[in-house]
Amino acid sequence: MNIKMIRYILGKMLGVEALLLLIPAFVGALYGEHEGIAFLIPSAILLFVYLLTGIKKPEKTKIYQKEGLVIVALAWILWSVFGALPFTISGEIPLYIDALFETISGFTTTGSSILPDVETLSQCMHFWRSFTHWVGGMGVLVFVLVLTSLEKSSTMYLMMAEVPGPEKEKLVPKMTSTARILYGIYFGMTALEVVLLLLGGMNVFDSLVHAFGTAGTGGFSNYAESVGHFGSAYIDGVITVFMILFGINFNLFFLLILRDFKPVWKNEELRAYLLIIAISTAFITMNLSGSYPSILTAFRYAVFQVGSVITTTGFATTDFALWPMFSQCILLMLMICGACASSTGGGIKVARVLIVLKSIKREIKQMKHPKSVSIIRVNGKKMNTDVVRKVCSYLMAYMAILIGSILLVSIDNKDFATTFSSVMATLNNIGPGIADVGPAGNFSQFSVFSKLVFCFDMLAGRLEIFPFLMLFAVPVWRKQF
Amino acid sequence: MNIKMIRYILGKMLGVEALLLLIPAFVGALYGEHEGIAFLIPSAILLFVYLLTGIKKPEKTKIYQKEGLVIVALAWILWSVFGALPFTISGEIPLYIDALFETISGFTTTGSSILPDVETLSQCMHFWRSFTHWVGGMGVLVFVLVLTSLEKSSTMYLMMAEVPGPEKEKLVPKMTSTARILYGIYFGMTALEVVLLLLGGMNVFDSLVHAFGTAGTGGFSNYAESVGHFGSAYIDGVITVFMILFGINFNLFFLLILRDFKPVWKNEELRAYLLIIAISTAFITMNLSGSYPSILTAFRYAVFQVGSVITTTGFATTDFALWPMFSQCILLMLMICGACASSTGGGIKVARVLIVLKSIKREIKQMKHPKSVSIIRVNGKKMNTDVVRKVCSYLMAYMAILIGSILLVSIDNKDFATTFSSVMATLNNIGPGIADVGPAGNFSQFSVFSKLVFCFDMLAGRLEIFPFLMLFAVPVWRKQF
Repeated sequence: MNIKMIRYILGKMLGVEALLLLIPAFVGALYGEHEGIAFLIPSAILLFVYLLTGIKKPEKTKIYQKEGLVIVALAWILWSVFGALPFTISGEIPLYIDALFETISGFTTTGSSILPDVETLSQCMHFWRSFTHWVGGMGVLVFVLVLTSLEKSSTMYLMMAEVPGPEKEKLVPKMTSTARILYGIYFGMTALEVVLLLLGGMNVFDSLVHAFGTAGTGGFSNYAESVGHFGSAYIDGVITVFMILFGINFNLFFLLILRDFKPVWKNEELRAYLLIIAISTAFITMNLSGSYPSILTAFRYAVFQVGSVITTTGFATTDFALWPMFSQCILLMLMICGACASSTGGGIKVARVLIVLKSIKREIKQMKHPKSVSIIRVNGKKMNTDVVRKVCSYLMAYMAILIGSILLVSIDNKDFATTFSSVMATLNNIGPGIADVGPAGNFSQFSVFSKLVFCFDMLAGRLEIFPFLMLFAVPVWRKQF
Repeated sequence: MNIKMIRYILGKMLGVEALLLLIPAFVGALYGEHEGIAFLIPSAILLFVYLLTGIKKPEKTKIYQKEGLVIVALAWILWSVFGALPFTISGEIPLYIDALFETISGFTTTGSSILPDVETLSQCMHFWRSFTHWVGGMGVLVFVLVLTSLEKSSTMYLMMAEVPGPEKEKLVPKMTSTARILYGIYFGMTALEVVLLLLGGMNVFDSLVHAFGTAGTGGFSNYAESVGHFGSAYIDGVITVFMILFGINFNLFFLLILRDFKPVWKNEELRAYLLIIAISTAFITMNLSGSYPSILTAFRYAVFQVGSVITTTGFATTDFALWPMFSQCILLMLMICGACASSTGGGIKVARVLIVLKSIKREIKQMKHPKSVSIIRVNGKKMNTDVVRKVCSYLMAYMAILIGSILLVSIDNKDFATTFSSVMATLNNIGPGIADVGPAGNFSQFSVFSKLVFCFDMLAGRLEIFPFLMLFAVPVWRKQF
């Protein structure tokens, strides 16, 4: 384990966070809020840490997969630990564990909140809370890679550990360029959404907050009623479309820019993703048709919620915890399914669902012809057994963490729907669940212990479990110091 | 597909059921109940079907894995379809779908019931209901194999399709002998339990009913309060011990008879199984200690329920749907886990849980040393990649059916705990769930559609999904007629 290089990269990371914290301080100054000062203290601490560790490059710069995983896991933890400080320093979230929960929920683009009344926050805190979504969406390390330069191989291992999905692709040979292209697309789409929201009559601040929440598929809003606050079909529509767009594999947008339409059109994951959205929306619309004045209104709420949940954004235009159980169960299934690989969305990803369904089909085929060898193809590409095995291991680990977390949270003795869906909502980085943690509820009701479990789940969910499990696996650290 | 041979074996199967139906008819005669006549009608029909199809052996007797799977799936469906008739003919369960549910629940050793008041049934119906548990426990085909003789290879494929667990072992080279040895052990242990229950003051009828329920890990009782009716610590104890014993791999009992103790002592699955029971009991006892007068009483209820749920028996001595959520969640986890492979218990089996945990561990190890090849061992035996892959596919299919069933049952708009746990309880062949389908509830509240879903789940759970999925896979049948 190259400890010196781990320290060096983490130092650089924290230096970047020091800079980021100046942005909400500036917002605070704009609005004349004294809470803005709360950002300067952690920023100064981080600058100091950066000066100590992030400047002098070690002699041996080579790192491998395991260092990549450890750096990514630690980077996310450290960013959250320091990013939570302003909330507590300003006194707006007095308990540090709550501030930590809120910050991890921000960076991991979960969007679950411990705030009983979100509207009491100052503007600069709102800005920081939503800004963590935007930065976390594409990955905090990818963000750092755009700003700094590291060795080629290091970059690769860092991105491999952070970008979600069963297989990682490079858009261009150089990883740093890939990161910059991805961020360019991300920035452009966010800007476009801001403009469209402004056209719908939102003010600049609100449109930034909601565009950050959409782009990162996070879901924090500065209103208690979330997007429902605006009560505008236009705004619902814009946000629905952008949520669904941000759930698509970003590599496909790159191909579109290159005018290479065929692989986009033929992309199996994209097709499955859109099909799932269409079918789920149709079923929920039918299921809700009696509860709303017209089928069109039912459709408007259904498609917004389907887009919000499958992309794991978690915005709400209505309290879906009051919907019939069938609609709620569809939403729970979409929570597990999640968006496309290499998007900002969470969940287990449509690509993995496809691989799972295809491997079940293969198993049935092999029972019929025991000697046949059949291969799983996704997007016409042969999946090697290694990828299939990794998908299985990932899902097993996912299940194990899901079950373990439910057990731990059940100690709080909430009802089953709350217990189950709170874990689902955090592990899949959704935000709201059903019952007491539905859109009208929040996570402040849980014990500190459960909040720690949720923090673990949000990070494990965002980093697709293994980088995080690796950190806690003792043999990784043994004998290397 | 060797259709003639499929018809011949199914014909033989139904002939055996014709004989079995005479036993409850005899019980009816003993108690002077006219309901006993209801068994003679289906028995006569089955005899007729047997005479038509099950006597003349086809020329080509060779069958392969796919025929084995199809025969097993169809045999279970047909036995249930005919076995349900007496309930409806006698008028004791007027709706045929309810009778079918009850019979499938019996044969698959699930133990879920649609009867709002179980104590209204006549004695001969009680006997038949519990007897289906006993026959289904070891597998209806294994039972037939004991009575009839088939070609060696046919026998193998039939047993492979029916005996649960990730790997099937033969105790002795000849499969029919293996079946006879297993049934010998099964019969002996059941008889021993009957004797011990008689010693506890139970009457002959009750002790037979409860021994059948224990041996098959089924859980039907002739009392509304289940085993709680007796209110005897001795009876609770005997049943607890026997439930746990019947959840152990039967091959180990064979080894014990041969005085080959070492592999039993070293058996990893057995150790894990007992450890899970011990830990779960300890946690539930602690969690319940406040609710019962003494810690010993809490222990008595805890260990009974843990044994009942992990072995998927489903007997109850108290209404655990009223326990704290932590205890209920432990029970839900035990439902998924299930008992040992090659036992009469359901669930995904401890052996598979072990393989899953080991493959997660291997994945972490491989992240650290990407070039290392590590092998999964269970009981010191190398698991080949084929077994691991099959375990994964099984679990994926299990998850897919679980999720799909929850969606379909949610149309009934019950609360989430009822919806979720009713599917869990049937798919894992447990019996009771939590909330409205807890020990004090029943399944009569669901729509016909949901009951059909549960019937599918019970059969798919008992046959470990693939034989059943195979039956519905169109390509299996295509081109072969």
